[in-house]
Amino acid sequence: MSSTISIITGGVTTPRGFRATGVSAGIKASRGLDLALLVSDAPARAAAVFTTNLAVAAPVVVSREHLERSAGATRAIVVNSGCANACTGDEGLRVARDMAWETARLVNCPADQVLVASTGVIGVALPVERVRGALPMAVDALGAGQDDGALAARAIMTTDPFPKEAAAEIAVGGLGVRIGGMAKGSGMIEPMLATMLGFVTTDATMPTALLDRALREAVDRTFNAITVDGECSTNDCVMLLASGASGVTIDEGSYAAFVAGLTAVCRELALGIVRGGEGATKLVTVVVTGAASSAEARQAAKAIANSLLVKTAIHGGDPNWGRLIAVAGRASVAFELSRAAVAIGPTVLFKNGRPYDEAAPEAAEYLKGTDLTVSVDLGAGAASSTVWTCDLSAEYVRINADYRT
Amino acid sequence: MSSTISIITGGVTTPRGFRATGVSAGIKASRGLDLALLVSDAPARAAAVFTTNLAVAAPVVVSREHLERSAGATRAIVVNSGCANACTGDEGLRVARDMAWETARLVNCPADQVLVASTGVIGVALPVERVRGALPMAVDALGAGQDDGALAARAIMTTDPFPKEAAAEIAVGGLGVRIGGMAKGSGMIEPMLATMLGFVTTDATMPTALLDRALREAVDRTFNAITVDGECSTNDCVMLLASGASGVTIDEGSYAAFVAGLTAVCRELALGIVRGGEGATKLVTVVVTGAASSAEARQAAKAIANSLLVKTAIHGGDPNWGRLIAVAGRASVAFELSRAAVAIGPTVLFKNGRPYDEAAPEAAEYLKGTDLTVSVDLGAGAASSTVWTCDLSAEYVRINADYRT
Repeated sequence: MSSTISIITGGVTTPRGFRATGVSAGIKASRGLDLALLVSDAPARAAAVFTTNLAVAAPVVVSREHLERSAGATRAIVVNSGCANACTGDEGLRVARDMAWETARLVNCPADQVLVASTGVIGVALPVERVRGALPMAVDALGAGQDDGALAARAIMTTDPFPKEAAAEIAVGGLGVRIGGMAKGSGMIEPMLATMLGFVTTDATMPTALLDRALREAVDRTFNAITVDGECSTNDCVMLLASGASGVTIDEGSYAAFVAGLTAVCRELALGIVRGGEGATKLVTVVVTGAASSAEARQAAKAIANSLLVKTAIHGGDPNWGRLIAVAGRASVAFELSRAAVAIGPTVLFKNGRPYDEAAPEAAEYLKGTDLTVSVDLGAGAASSTVWTCDLSAEYVRINADYRT
Repeated sequence: MSSTISIITGGVTTPRGFRATGVSAGIKASRGLDLALLVSDAPARAAAVFTTNLAVAAPVVVSREHLERSAGATRAIVVNSGCANACTGDEGLRVARDMAWETARLVNCPADQVLVASTGVIGVALPVERVRGALPMAVDALGAGQDDGALAARAIMTTDPFPKEAAAEIAVGGLGVRIGGMAKGSGMIEPMLATMLGFVTTDATMPTALLDRALREAVDRTFNAITVDGECSTNDCVMLLASGASGVTIDEGSYAAFVAGLTAVCRELALGIVRGGEGATKLVTVVVTGAASSAEARQAAKAIANSLLVKTAIHGGDPNWGRLIAVAGRASVAFELSRAAVAIGPTVLFKNGRPYDEAAPEAAEYLKGTDLTVSVDLGAGAASSTVWTCDLSAEYVRINADYRT
């Protein structure tokens, strides 16, 4: 079954059945937007993926509990920025539950139909009374317009340089299904500010198992395929709500089209995170081919994407293929030097066991761009993987070495 | 059996039975010292450990072959800096064999009693005729004085900010055994300059199997426990030669004392590499306790030591314990947040599931020093590990982002 995906302007309120907003609760010292609310008019089906970090934050614990108890039925997601509510012990759990409970009371649903997310400073108590104080205002301000989604996208930012929103429309049996999303994250931006969050909505409906599978597939190719600094936060999560308001039910026949649309939206959001990575000046697509397995291809691509030497060489515009080969060789994957190859953009610099340094000036010229691809063939098989990263600049160090206090 | 270890001034010529020198062969454009020669008066027993990088350089291939063929008997080690002879194909192998052959001819031994090492630019042909031209001069210049060892230590440097030498003496049954070494490495210093090399001598003798075991134990606790940028070069190696010239044979009874002395020498050299790491301003000892196993303790310690966020926080003097907890939580090891603890120097900042932020100013004061310890208890067991790293500065990025051409 072929399908068309149209990338459209929009965000979490683009799919029918959702309202959103962002308000200032006074959690951030700056008094900027710091509380986002996303509400589904009727209980939506929800799927979510959470951080694998064992130092898991309170909102992640609570959202996992609620998803399990409600069997995926979700009316609202409440998100604060400015405080991660992580490493805050039992008090932190009480605060996260309070946020959900108060939201549930205001939107009139069971507490376990509310999911919670937080991002900001680790180890600091979240001033829950400010959240409680601001929530009625947020519920009043909820709207289904594009501007309302944009407010939510701004309210989940910490020091992201710009908000991240994306939307797509796919055709299923002559009917349109919309998918929209917002995300935040820029590496670990300020000292002790952290976290990547993504929230995606759709007006399709589908069995929870299929929704969950679609989210995992899309996240694996997008949010899990980006890196800014190789770190994994205590609060990371991506949540997907399906309202069913389009009247379209996704089944096995339309599943591929839906996953393609969902992946397109998640990719836009994920690449936005990399483009806005701390100190980043270039978006780098790392393509690994010739791997013995998909897992090894991903492992090698991640090793390259996280290599300080690769990231600094790209920052400096240096076509330093030796660093790419050296990382591939230490990535604990099958690798055959005599059959390996390295290309920067379209220019092959190492192949058949020998350098092509005469092509270095051409590669150096290419590296002056800001949207770059580097490719490594491991010479060991037929599997491949693509991941995205950014360059490493002195600005990254300056941002992260600043005093927190 | 108790033993005393005296750390003494010296290097590879401190143990009896060795001569060394460093000369300029014209491999480096700077015309600085770039060829080191270390000769044992009689065939020494040798042990060596090599890079695990699969993009293995020609000199590593040749040295491995020679060690196997000669059953560990070694007369000389020849080392050049300025060119790694890596990713140079069959021609590179011929060049590495040529270096060994010419050295063997001049010191009058079988070719497989010569080991070879190279460090410098990857993917560039090594001008072997320059090595051949300079070798007779090097053989003439060989000497057993401390200055001769110091010349060799300087000749193996690439852009290391200072040479690394160390020596120790241990008493075995009333007789003195000396151990001396030299090393180079500073991360991957200039674009496509790489590699950590270590050469250690002793005037003890011992069965090759025991020598090999001693080297592996010492390297595991020292050279394998340091990191500057998480990279593993194509040329890394540590070689140990035992001349027997002290008349002392190390057996199972004196093995522990020998390993302690060898470890002390290797630790000095390894910490020198970290202190001289690119852009480094602080030496950081990372101690992980409370791990479920030694392997997991090492894995968590390495994850912390390689974390950009930890390294930049330390550079900025920020007592950012949240970053340490977050890395421990994502290190793929057993971890119990409620039983975990973090200390910066002597100051506990997180314990029993709660922060002690009132101690942050004390920790910030401590971080103004240049020789620092950070400790993380994983709360999951009784195993521990210590690794050493340096801070990450904007200077690191500047060094590595420079154009190679």
